[in-house]
Order: sequence, then C-alpha cells, then structure tokens
Amino acid sequence: MVNLALFGAGRIGQIHAANVALNADCNLLYVVDVNAEVAQQTADKYAAKVATLDTVFADEAVDAVLICSITETHADLIERAALAGKAIFCEKPVDLSIDRVNACLALVKEHQVPLMMAFNRRFDPNFAHLKNVLDSGQVGDIEMLTISSRDPSAPPASYIKSSGGLFRDMTIHDFDVARWLLGEEPISLYASASALTEDYVKECGDVDTAIITLTCKSGKMAVITNSRRATYGYDQRVEVHASGGMLSINNVPESTLSIANQQGVSSQKPMAFFLERYAAAYRHELDAFIQGIVSGEVNYPSGDDGRKALLMADAAVKSLQTGEVQPLNLTAE
Amino acid sequence: MVNLALFGAGRIGQIHAANVALNADCNLLYVVDVNAEVAQQTADKYAAKVATLDTVFADEAVDAVLICSITETHADLIERAALAGKAIFCEKPVDLSIDRVNACLALVKEHQVPLMMAFNRRFDPNFAHLKNVLDSGQVGDIEMLTISSRDPSAPPASYIKSSGGLFRDMTIHDFDVARWLLGEEPISLYASASALTEDYVKECGDVDTAIITLTCKSGKMAVITNSRRATYGYDQRVEVHASGGMLSINNVPESTLSIANQQGVSSQKPMAFFLERYAAAYRHELDAFIQGIVSGEVNYPSGDDGRKALLMADAAVKSLQTGEVQPLNLTAE
Amino acid sequence: MVNLALFGAGRIGQIHAANVALNADCNLLYVVDVNAEVAQQTADKYAAKVATLDTVFADEAVDAVLICSITETHADLIERAALAGKAIFCEKPVDLSIDRVNACLALVKEHQVPLMMAFNRRFDPNFAHLKNVLDSGQVGDIEMLTISSRDPSAPPASYIKSSGGLFRDMTIHDFDVARWLLGEEPISLYASASALTEDYVKECGDVDTAIITLTCKSGKMAVITNSRRATYGYDQRVEVHASGGMLSINNVPESTLSIANQQGVSSQKPMAFFLERYAAAYRHELDAFIQGIVSGEVNYPSGDDGRKALLMADAAVKSLQTGEVQPLNLTAE
Amino acid sequence: MVNLALFGAGRIGQIHAANVALNADCNLLYVVDVNAEVAQQTADKYAAKVATLDTVFADEAVDAVLICSITETHADLIERAALAGKAIFCEKPVDLSIDRVNACLALVKEHQVPLMMAFNRRFDPNFAHLKNVLDSGQVGDIEMLTISSRDPSAPPASYIKSSGGLFRDMTIHDFDVARWLLGEEPISLYASASALTEDYVKECGDVDTAIITLTCKSGKMAVITNSRRATYGYDQRVEVHASGGMLSINNVPESTLSIANQQGVSSQKPMAFFLERYAAAYRHELDAFIQGIVSGEVNYPSGDDGRKALLMADAAVKSLQTGEVQPLNLTAE
Repeated sequence: MVNLALFGAGRIGQIHAANVALNADCNLLYVVDVNAEVAQQTADKYAAKVATLDTVFADEAVDAVLICSITETHADLIERAALAGKAIFCEKPVDLSIDRVNACLALVKEHQVPLMMAFNRRFDPNFAHLKNVLDSGQVGDIEMLTISSRDPSAPPASYIKSSGGLFRDMTIHDFDVARWLLGEEPISLYASASALTEDYVKECGDVDTAIITLTCKSGKMAVITNSRRATYGYDQRVEVHASGGMLSINNVPESTLSIANQQGVSSQKPMAFFLERYAAAYRHELDAFIQGIVSGEVNYPSGDDGRKALLMADAAVKSLQTGEVQPLNLTAE
Repeated sequence: MVNLALFGAGRIGQIHAANVALNADCNLLYVVDVNAEVAQQTADKYAAKVATLDTVFADEAVDAVLICSITETHADLIERAALAGKAIFCEKPVDLSIDRVNACLALVKEHQVPLMMAFNRRFDPNFAHLKNVLDSGQVGDIEMLTISSRDPSAPPASYIKSSGGLFRDMTIHDFDVARWLLGEEPISLYASASALTEDYVKECGDVDTAIITLTCKSGKMAVITNSRRATYGYDQRVEVHASGGMLSINNVPESTLSIANQQGVSSQKPMAFFLERYAAAYRHELDAFIQGIVSGEVNYPSGDDGRKALLMADAAVKSLQTGEVQPLNLTAE
Repeated sequence: MVNLALFGAGRIGQIHAANVALNADCNLLYVVDVNAEVAQQTADKYAAKVATLDTVFADEAVDAVLICSITETHADLIERAALAGKAIFCEKPVDLSIDRVNACLALVKEHQVPLMMAFNRRFDPNFAHLKNVLDSGQVGDIEMLTISSRDPSAPPASYIKSSGGLFRDMTIHDFDVARWLLGEEPISLYASASALTEDYVKECGDVDTAIITLTCKSGKMAVITNSRRATYGYDQRVEVHASGGMLSINNVPESTLSIANQQGVSSQKPMAFFLERYAAAYRHELDAFIQGIVSGEVNYPSGDDGRKALLMADAAVKSLQTGEVQPLNLTAE
Repeated sequence: MVNLALFGAGRIGQIHAANVALNADCNLLYVVDVNAEVAQQTADKYAAKVATLDTVFADEAVDAVLICSITETHADLIERAALAGKAIFCEKPVDLSIDRVNACLALVKEHQVPLMMAFNRRFDPNFAHLKNVLDSGQVGDIEMLTISSRDPSAPPASYIKSSGGLFRDMTIHDFDVARWLLGEEPISLYASASALTEDYVKECGDVDTAIITLTCKSGKMAVITNSRRATYGYDQRVEVHASGGMLSINNVPESTLSIANQQGVSSQKPMAFFLERYAAAYRHELDAFIQGIVSGEVNYPSGDDGRKALLMADAAVKSLQTGEVQPLNLTAE
C-alpha cells in the first residue's frame, strides 16, 4: 500500500484524489492546501487528514507526494520531497526557469527518488494505442508527425502573465508528445506565431496561434499547430505519416449522436476540455505512478523529459523573437 | 458498333443518351418521343434522327432499343422489339400486371432476344463493391440483410395513382437488391406500412412508410425500411450481417466538406436524388448492356428478375391488406 | 446518506458496488452472496459487512437493496424487500413468468416502495442524448425506429437453457428501448428468427438471429434486428427516422486510432461488450436510483416497464412458433 | 461555339478532349502531337483533324488552344498563341525559369488574350465548396490553413530530373491553393524537407518529404505538408481554422463500402491519383475556361497566379538550401 500526500486540492488535485480512491494499491494520508476549507473538505471526502508540509515530510509513513499546487511551488516541493526520500508525482512544469530546473533535477538525481512529470497525453488510451501500433513496426518508420492542439478558448490575462506564455504552458505538452513519438531528438525548431484571438493576449506580450516545425538529424520532421481558440471544442489530434502507412487519432465526441436534416448531417463536438477529454489519462497516469513505486520499475515521463520540453519552449520563444530557425541540443542530460 | 434507338427522351432517356455518347462501342441512330420538340433536340444533340416506332422496328440497322417511355408502354414495346429481333434495355417495370408480364416474357423467351431490366443499383460502384466482397467469401455466409431506402420527398398524387404504389414503384428496387444479395429466393414476406408524410398519399390509397421482412428457407433474413420523405436527402444504404463480419455501404455526400463550430461538426447531406446518386450506375449499366451484346454473354438483370420483384411487391400489397405474413413462390420461372 | 445492501457480488454486482463508492450520497452497508469468499472480498474492498438476507431485511438502517443475484431469485427478493419497506434496484427481469411478475408487482404496489428495473441503455449518455433531442421536438415526430443489437458471441448452452431464450434475455432490452423511444405502446409484433451461429443454440430450442417488427396505432413502426454473434464486437445502434430528420447513435470504438495503408483505412472495433460499452450507463443508473430516493421523485424504468418488455418477449416467442403476427395489449397496468 | 486546338494528346490531353466533347459550347478542331498515331486516334475519336502548329495558329477559326504538351514547350506555345490572338488554357507551369515566365506573361499582357493556368484543385467540387463557405463569412476570418498533399508514390528519376523538383512540380499546386484560400499574399516562407522514400530521389538532388510554413502580414499562417509516398493512396486534404469555426475537406474514398470484422472496421482508400480524384475538377475547369470566353468575363487562375506559385517554389528551394526563412514579395505583378 503506497501512502500518499496531496499538495494542492484544486481542480487537478481533486481529479488525482478521486483516482487514488479507485486504485487499490494506494491510500491518501494527507491533504495540504493554502485554503483550509478546501483542504478539510477533501480530507473528509477521502478519509485523509489535513496537514502542513512539515508534517508530511516528517512522516515516515508517507511514501510519495502528488504536487498539484501552483507552478511557483513545484521546484521547492520537489526538492523537499527529494530530501525527505519521497517518490514524486508532479504536474508540469518543474519550473519556468531552465536554471532552476537544472538545479532541482540535480538534487533529485542525487537523492535517487522516483520523479514522474505528469504529461497526461502519454497515458490517454488513444495516444497510447497510436504509440503501441507505431512501436510495433507495422506501419514502418515514422517520416512526419503532425500534432493539432487547440484549446476551446483563451485563458484569462492573469493566467497568461504567469504561465510563461503559449509555448511554455500549452505547447509544452505537444513538445513532449513530439519527442515521445518521434523516437529521436529534434535538432532544429522554427516557430511562427501571432495573436489573433483576444486583444489582451497581445497586450500580455503573448501569442495565441502558432505553427512550430521540428526537424531531426535523420530527416524525420514534425509540425505542431496551436490555437488558444477553437469554437468547436478542445481539438487534440495526432497524425503519423510513416513509410508503410498513416496512423491518426481523432477527437472524442461528446456523444455518438448524429442528426441528419435539411441542413446536413451534424455530429457532436469534441469533448469540452482536458478534464473531460483526458479523464482516462489521469486515471492511467496515477496508476502508472503507483505501479512504478510498487514494482520498482520506473518508466515515467521523467524530470529530464520536463526539462527538454521546456528547452523546446524556450527555443520557440527565441525563434519567434528573432524570426530565425533555432538549433536544439537535447541529447545531453 | 451497336446501333441503338431511344424510346422516350425524358429525364432518364437523356441520361442514357449521354452515356451512349461516352461508350465507344455504340451509336444512337434514332430518337422516338411523343413530344416532337424534345425528340428533335435530343436527336440534334447526339447526331441521331427522329423516327416513328415503325421506322425503328423496320430498320435492320437497329441492333437494340432503349425503352425509357412511360410504364404503360413497356410491355408493348418489349413485345414489338422481340418480334423485330432487337436486343432490349428496359426501365422497370415490364408492367404492373403480373399476367401481362408473364405473357410478355414468354414472347421474349420465344424470340430469344436479350432483355435487360435496368435495375440501376446493381451497377452502382458501391453496391457492386459490396456484392464483390460478399461473393469473395471473406466475410462468410450472409445471415441478415438490411436495406434502408428513402426518397427525399413524396412524388405528386398523380404519379402515385399510376405508379402501382410504394411497393411496386419504389420498394421494387429494394426487392431486386434483396434477391441479388441474399443469393437465395425468399419464401415469406411480411409488410407493415402506414401513411405518415403527405395527406394525399393516404387519399390515393397508398402508404409512404414501410418495413418489409423477408425470410429464406435456410434461415437467412432481410429487412427493408422505406420512406417517401427523408428531409436529409436520398437515403440509400445496405448492411450485410454475415457469419464472419459485416459489410455496409453508406450514402455518398454532396461534398466532403465538414464544418466544425459551436453547434457541432456538420457534414454534407447525401446526394439529392437518383439522377445524381446513381450517375455512375447508369453509365455502367448501359456499358454492361452494350458489352453483353458485343460479347454475346448476357449476364443482366433479366425479365424474370423484373417479374420476381413484381411478385414480391404484389405480396407486400396483400400482406398489408390482410395483416398477415405471405408465402412467396419465386423459384419457378 | 442512503444505506445499501448488495445481493449478488458477481460481475454486475461488482460494477454497482464500485459506483456506490463513487456516489457521495450513498453507502454500502452489507454484501450478501452464496459464495462466502467473494462476499468477504467485496465487503472488505468497500468497508461493508457480509450478511444474511435476514439480517439485511431486519436492519432498519438499510434504505435500499441492489438485486444483482440470479434471475430465479429476483421476484422473491423484490417481495421480501417490499415487505421490509426497502427501495429496490433490480437487474432485469423480475421473473420469466408473467404471472409471477404480476403477483410480485402487485405486492410492490401495495407496499409503495420505489422499484427501479435496471434497463441500462436508458442511462447511456448516447441513448440519453438521442432521447433528449427527440423529446425536444427539433426533428419532429418519430415515424420509424430501427434498433440494431448484436452480441459479440453466443452465450454458453447452459445460459441459454435458463435465460428464457433470445427474446427474453437479449431482445428484452431492445423492447424496452423501443417503448421508451416510440412514446406510444406498440399494438402488434411480428418476429422472424433462425438459428445460424452455434449448433447448440438450435439444440437448446432457441434462435440467435432475429428481426422483430412493431407497429403502433398511429402508424409509427419499429424494427429490431438481433444476432448472438457479431465478429466485430458489441453492436448497439439506434436510428430514429422522424418527420423532420433522422437521429442516430453509433457504436463507441475502442479507441479513435485509424490506420491507413495499402489495405484501406482501418478504424477500431466497437467496445467489446456491455461491461465496457455501458460503463457510464451503470454509473448513471445507480446515481439516478439514489437521486430518486433522496429527492422522493422517482422517475425510473419501473416494474411495469419490466412487465411490458416481458409481454413483448412472450409475444415474440408466440409469433415465431405460429408464424403469425401477434397483437400486443400493453396499455393496462 | 468556341473552336479549340489541343496541343499534346497524352494522359491529361485525353481528359480535356473528353470534356470538350461533353461541353455543348465548344468544339475540337485540331489535335497536335509529336506522336502521329496518338494524334490521329484522338482526332478520329472526337471528329477533329490532325494538324501542325503552323496550321493551328494560321487558322482564324481557332478561338482557343489547350496546352497539354511537355513543360519545356509551354512558354513558346503561350507566346505563339498570344501573337495569334488565341485564348489560352495551359497546364502548369508557364516555365521553370522565373525570367522566362516574366517575359512570356508580358507578351500575353501586351496582346490581351485570356490565359488560364489550369490549377485543377480550385475547380474540384470539394475545394470549391470549402472556398464558398469560407467566402460566405459564416466561420469568420481565416487564422490558419493546413494543407496535406501526398502522392501515392514517387515519380521516376527521369521525371524528377526535369520537373524542377518537389516544390516546383508538386507543392506548386499547394502554393496556389494557399494563396487562393488565405486571401492575402504570404510574406515569408520556411521550408524543411528531406529525402526519405526512394534512394534515387536524393541522388537526383531532390527531396520527397516536406513541411512549408507561410506567414502573412496580418498574422494569418499556413502550413503545407508533402510526401511523394502515401501507401494508402492520394492524400489531398485541407483544413481552415477560422475565428468562428473550422472547415475541412477530406479524401474521397474509392467506394463507401465498410467491412467490420475481428480486425476492426475497414473503409476504402482514397481514390488512387489525380486522374480519378480530380475528374470532376478537370470537367469544371474546362467548362470555366469556355464560359469565360463565351461571356467575356474571365475569372481564371491567371498567368500571374502561375508566376507567384513559382516564386514561392523558388523561395522554398532557397529556404531548404540555406536553412533560413525566406521573405516573399508577391504583391507586385
């Protein structure tokens, strides 16, 4: 039985807490949240206790922590958990500063605790099915990867100001998917982007519409298209063009209902946003984290995966600022 | 070079005339139509001559006739063509009276001229593809056949009064498709139907909405669903449930355009009606008719196929009138 | 907080127990199962106690019972629960004998306890979406209903012998869906069926392939197609042809992955069987049961719905035996 | 009646000759081809005469010419036609040298003859439908355009050596589509490409797999993905992401047949290649050319459209050679 502490009982923290309850191999011991009421409600619901960070890190019964608090706290909490010898499940990113990330990961390495960066898409049944078929070799070698990733609507200005911008908060998921599927580190990146949705996006100094091209030494390529606004819902598609065929995963509609009438044949929009679309992914990633601890075989998206995705986001920012293609050096850990 | 005469230069006659022009092995010699102006325009367009029936049947240069005139004329024209030794392409039906059909086909048999009943669906590339895969055995033996066949809107009352009603003018195509795909003559038929679209349908003593069940001795079954009104366009689908899988053909949309927005994901309606939907089928059936004459290997939907489809329509009428299941005896020619 | 006892901790009982755990308004008090080990494991997993029927019915803390045991026990358990004043959630059927059903429901009526027959499809998000759009009137009045319902493979002979056969164990779900969607009681039924899959089906005196036609007084019709074997997976589709358009719900694929290569474009099979396909439906039906108890507004598929579906199954058996259309009299309760 | 001469009776010339025969407003007078036998067969089939270029250009009865001969002859034939005052329909490109194109188009301008560059996709019913809906404003302003364009297999080395390479012979169609749909000239281009299919592609100094990003001053963007090998057939899709929704056109399958079995649900491959896929487009573009001559309102893809697409191809070559983003200056004619 893996005993857990939850840091942050907000929207994503609630998802993970519910999945802990469904997993027979783990147990929620503590809930930590700056909002005392939310902490208490969550603790009550799952028969856990409200606690302080100090209590959690001092309690030897705690095997692992789930870091679901705000980005600014991630690196500190990772470091404290590493020092305390706890396994770590952390929402992306480690930090928005690559230097801070490097320092943090060095400490984790030193203390040899498992660290899983929660890149949810790797655990979505559709993405995972595509990956399995690709790895099976039945469509040959990947030649080109196309990722369409669009949010239903732009986040508020306050979020954009603290998130690191489109590339660091949204595209970072696509960078991870690209690395995971390409099976080879990209060596160059070119980003083209503009602000076309809400006026405040430009005022925040950010962009909302982007095309990013990645190239690998072997000649494999990937292209990521992003938008902060898709009126038709959360758009999450991947297409792999390989030497022996094409693999693609499509959006998951809200229902399979179709309505045919004089206006045409209408089917349902994609599921609204990540909480619905990736519900199964969240369950599977928590299960994988626990399974890794139980079995001792850790095969997660790692801190280094988080670091590399951030390096790509940083390169995208620089490409956009300079209008030039950027080299990527992702091989050294 | 097969020399042809066209009887009836209306909507369907025009289709066949254009397909004659595209077929390198045949030539349109004569056009016969009660409307002199239409006859002349058609003749001019395809470098043919306007003629009377007597001229056509007396001219030894005429190898074959295309009967596209109104239903009431079919049996007479078939008989005159048989007597004159011309090959015959005839729009369905031979006649609405089964006795008249029997007499007419007896004469055709006696004079041994090729007779093709133009059941267009057998020549549609989609239907033909399904039939080929079914015959290949790759999905095993057919167990159940489902035919959905719906017109976009009810024909005018005048048409209904002379057409023989839903079963004899519309379902007759589905009866032919059912026999063709089942590969075994059905032995019983049950029809349930009602008048739900336009008031004049009921006033004409007809129905517009129907479910017909067919059973075979081996246990194979088929169900046909019909409507005279499909607001979303011409609905023409077939599903074959077989021991090793399911084959289905879907509607052909007007274009592949899809529009995704806040209302959902909208694709295009099926093609409007038979002239558009079966354009390729008309081309292929004319080609098959000519090819049969050229090669001497006649493998058409025959007069007997027309007769059997009419017997099924008559049984459907009787089933509806009595509320009882009707036996079918289609084996004897 | 609604306190529950679970009768039967087999496959379907486990599903309901897990959904009880996810519902914040109810609590599992007791588990009853003839298999002591299974009962104990289930009780342990959900912090409940193993008990006898007598204990459950005698304990005033128990508000409701979930009857998930074998069919033969349903009517007795319903009656004991009614006598004890417990709300009842029962898997279909009440019983295979219509007389027994009538007696049982009379007792339930007398004791005025809520009884929900767990017809899962009404709670599936896809079926429910179709029903909502139909009820909204946006596609006008229903004219024809088509239900395709096929199991992936035939159940073992032992099951068939005790289940009441195809119509009473499988089609009964489709009969309920038909009544629910038609919004009008059917007045006649014609069933055509045969045994085409496994030899033992015929040896058990049952059929595995069926077409059932239902007609209503208004002229509305429905057709149900069934098979005990669909090599491509669990086939569960509905199509509503209405005066202003067509509604349809399609199968839910195992994933959205599509593979395009020289053989064609391959997408995934429908989800394997009811446990996967109706996972959300099971969650929603349990939620609805609890919500009805909490709110006092019971709006379930009732015992009478179960009775009427059984009457239709009985009529289908008779239609098949006689080869004749059967009248249905479902209006009187 | 528009009298035409056909230059080049190869594969594409045959298509246009057949479409001339189907168009009631034009007539084929002459066929010119270096292969005397092919010229004669074509002339015989369509009741035209074999002729030399001198005869065609000297004959005042000739209203227009269809240039379907090899690329090297295009500019010369355009110039001779312009000097002779004939309307010109020309397969792309005008020439592979931009200087030669400029000189040629200057002469056309001077002699004020209609010149249509036969960019077939603009006339495909699916592309045209998308364009119409986009122009209607119902999905708002275009923000991002995605073009997937892949040939079924690489052309022979001999073709690659003379075609100008991937960007000038294949992507040039996509460049035209991008300009047509964006409604604004792109101002920068970045091309990433590699040779991943056949060894001889690299040996010819060409590439076969490419991603090209285009940006406009307003912030609109486009991305084109290309491959010379798509094992699943000719892949021709467009997606328009706009402020109020997404428009997309999908491939046209060979038939609507779907096969569901234990392996999954298999549908048909896209139509094999351009002759099948764009059959309707060829018919519509010829009709548009004739209609423009008859009506005097010329609204074609022009010589300048051909020139701009070539400028984009040249920029793509330079981007690939330098690894740098290239500016585009397409505004001046």
